[in-house]
Amino acid sequence: MAIQKPRIDINGSRLWDSIHSYARIGATAKGGVKRMAFSQLDYQARDQFIDECTELNMTIERDKIGNIFATMAGEDPTLPVVMVGSHLDTQPTGGKYDGALGVLSALEIAKSVYEAGQRPKRGLQVVAFANEEGGRFAPAMMGSGVFAGKLSLDDMLAIKDIDGMTVAEELGRDSTGDYPARPNTAIDSMFEIHIEQGPILEEEGLPIGAVTGVQAIRWYDVTIVGSEAHAGPTPMTSRKDAGLGAAELSLAIEQVALDHGPDGRGTVGVIVPSPASRNVIPGSVYLTIDTRHPSDEALLEMKQAIQDAAKVIAEKRGLEIDVTEIWHSPATPFDEGLVQRLEHFAAERGHPIRRIWSGAGHDSVYIAQMGVPTVMVFTQTKDGISHNESESIKKEDAIAGCEVLADAVVERLFKG
Amino acid sequence: MAIQKPRIDINGSRLWDSIHSYARIGATAKGGVKRMAFSQLDYQARDQFIDECTELNMTIERDKIGNIFATMAGEDPTLPVVMVGSHLDTQPTGGKYDGALGVLSALEIAKSVYEAGQRPKRGLQVVAFANEEGGRFAPAMMGSGVFAGKLSLDDMLAIKDIDGMTVAEELGRDSTGDYPARPNTAIDSMFEIHIEQGPILEEEGLPIGAVTGVQAIRWYDVTIVGSEAHAGPTPMTSRKDAGLGAAELSLAIEQVALDHGPDGRGTVGVIVPSPASRNVIPGSVYLTIDTRHPSDEALLEMKQAIQDAAKVIAEKRGLEIDVTEIWHSPATPFDEGLVQRLEHFAAERGHPIRRIWSGAGHDSVYIAQMGVPTVMVFTQTKDGISHNESESIKKEDAIAGCEVLADAVVERLFKG
Repeated sequence: MAIQKPRIDINGSRLWDSIHSYARIGATAKGGVKRMAFSQLDYQARDQFIDECTELNMTIERDKIGNIFATMAGEDPTLPVVMVGSHLDTQPTGGKYDGALGVLSALEIAKSVYEAGQRPKRGLQVVAFANEEGGRFAPAMMGSGVFAGKLSLDDMLAIKDIDGMTVAEELGRDSTGDYPARPNTAIDSMFEIHIEQGPILEEEGLPIGAVTGVQAIRWYDVTIVGSEAHAGPTPMTSRKDAGLGAAELSLAIEQVALDHGPDGRGTVGVIVPSPASRNVIPGSVYLTIDTRHPSDEALLEMKQAIQDAAKVIAEKRGLEIDVTEIWHSPATPFDEGLVQRLEHFAAERGHPIRRIWSGAGHDSVYIAQMGVPTVMVFTQTKDGISHNESESIKKEDAIAGCEVLADAVVERLFKG
Repeated sequence: MAIQKPRIDINGSRLWDSIHSYARIGATAKGGVKRMAFSQLDYQARDQFIDECTELNMTIERDKIGNIFATMAGEDPTLPVVMVGSHLDTQPTGGKYDGALGVLSALEIAKSVYEAGQRPKRGLQVVAFANEEGGRFAPAMMGSGVFAGKLSLDDMLAIKDIDGMTVAEELGRDSTGDYPARPNTAIDSMFEIHIEQGPILEEEGLPIGAVTGVQAIRWYDVTIVGSEAHAGPTPMTSRKDAGLGAAELSLAIEQVALDHGPDGRGTVGVIVPSPASRNVIPGSVYLTIDTRHPSDEALLEMKQAIQDAAKVIAEKRGLEIDVTEIWHSPATPFDEGLVQRLEHFAAERGHPIRRIWSGAGHDSVYIAQMGVPTVMVFTQTKDGISHNESESIKKEDAIAGCEVLADAVVERLFKG
């Protein structure tokens, strides 16, 4: 009689120690980590990961963009594998948990399954995707994007960093020199645990969240053209101040996001007035807009509202405002059944949980877009801060997240 | 019997030709002039000016900062002289008229007085102040500032340009090598004609304005500190967006200036958000404020209103806003009697005129601050544009301005 789901408990302290062991590779003076994609330190972390997987008798495969797949064989090698993982690279002044939590939780699950001595029905494939951050070689999520067929391998290999070094050249540094294409293994499901990188769980005092999907994103470039003029002689009523147009547009974008709350987001991150002189009225401004919403339809409504606002501001102030969309990523919902399993196991373990949308992109998004049932767990992030050396999470939250993730993964592993 | 004021007519076409003759020195392809302070081209223009003055039997003196004084002796050498002039240097992409109109109108008046053959009671001193623009060696109005004792000669001589060359080194290039201290001559009055550099005269269809003084100016540096956070996960209501604080403050400054209209001015010329990344909420912003008003009291009220607005915005958005005043120039009213004489002679010549405040600084401001009765004439400026190669004025407006200026100067010259 097949066991539906054996109880397998992860070793929380071992997980926490493991995270802090990897955090020493590229540790910064301020308590963060600098381990940029394809750097010597990145390879050092990847090698340590490969060694640990090898000790568990896992099979190591790497694809041509540098993703690492470590597979623990299941009883039936014809069944699609359960994929679990994240990434090991960091931002230039990154933290200890972004990415590493996901890979090392997956590794901890593999260790626990291995130690439990029960062979799962299907294979467990722990993955470390390459260059998720894109901090050195843009775009972000490069490894998972190539894996999913959404980014061109040749295009990505030709991408250069600021010093003119290509991805292909850096991949040549890998000590093994072994780059087969992506594994042929079919994927049953994808699991990833990641820090929230936002304040919601902390605000509500919750350790973890079940991620229902990733928001749709639209990016815009905006140019506002007015009239450059001397700040002294030019009366307020004769001005065509592009800077004030930018100010009104920024506030209008905030209002549009609030009108599509609580999940709507609108951000002006870059503002560049010209000529940027203390006593000259800005003749033009370049600015960027980042908008997000879980609903594709709502994000389109926000687009229309921003364009309408720009038109009103332009007419009122005698400016020319051009709003051009430069990038669009549709909403990617995760698997409802898997979300429910996370909620079930969280309740079973006594860990409070809530459903949460992800505002940021993750490797799992590309896997979900392949049609693979996918889900993520978020853990509470101190002050919502990530991509920063002060990034911090609580040990108990990391363990709670890994426990719930492990339960859902194990259930899937032993499913027929 | 002394003639109260002989009628002396300037030669308008000669003035216009003279302006365009000097505009060839440093002429740019786009119809502007690049003749930066103490450059070889600046010396070429200065030498031409000295030659022309010498032909009128004027005495040439230069002071240690490079100001040139050309004096036509009066009947009574003990009487204070009437000073008329402006500057010959330009912005890096300057126009033909800013400065040159003033020096060459003064020279035209000297030629006309010389040709009229009537010796004035008091001396006429035509002045070309050095480095008014400050485009290469800051601050602006360097020559008149040193002359008036408001700037330290030694400090100014040590100022370096972007290549590390000092003012003292560049002054050494002058072909004469003759740098006496500033003339001891007492000054009866100061006259300057200049382009308006603003849109008011054009908007009202007037050729000229009688300048009643220069506005008070206060400059501020502002830092706004919020919380840098990821544009995706961070809910709109959890943000401390320094960029939105800057937007609200910019609009508040506009409103404060409008509330102190029509003469109040408030300008945010520089805005620098940080980290200036498309998908990061600005954690901080640096911006500059330039405020101006003819009334010192009103400018102080504006200061208070801006500080109050900053406080409200900071509290509302959870930001820290620091507004620090970095420079203050008090209002400098010109001589009411001389303003009335300009109005009188404009009426006599049939040139429409209005009183106007100057929003920009001019060499005459420093002379007025010495206690010398001072006045300026403004001429209509196409689209209010200056410090630009497209700077343009009408020939008839330049002539109208010079005629009225000449009448007022001549009256003063022949006064007992």
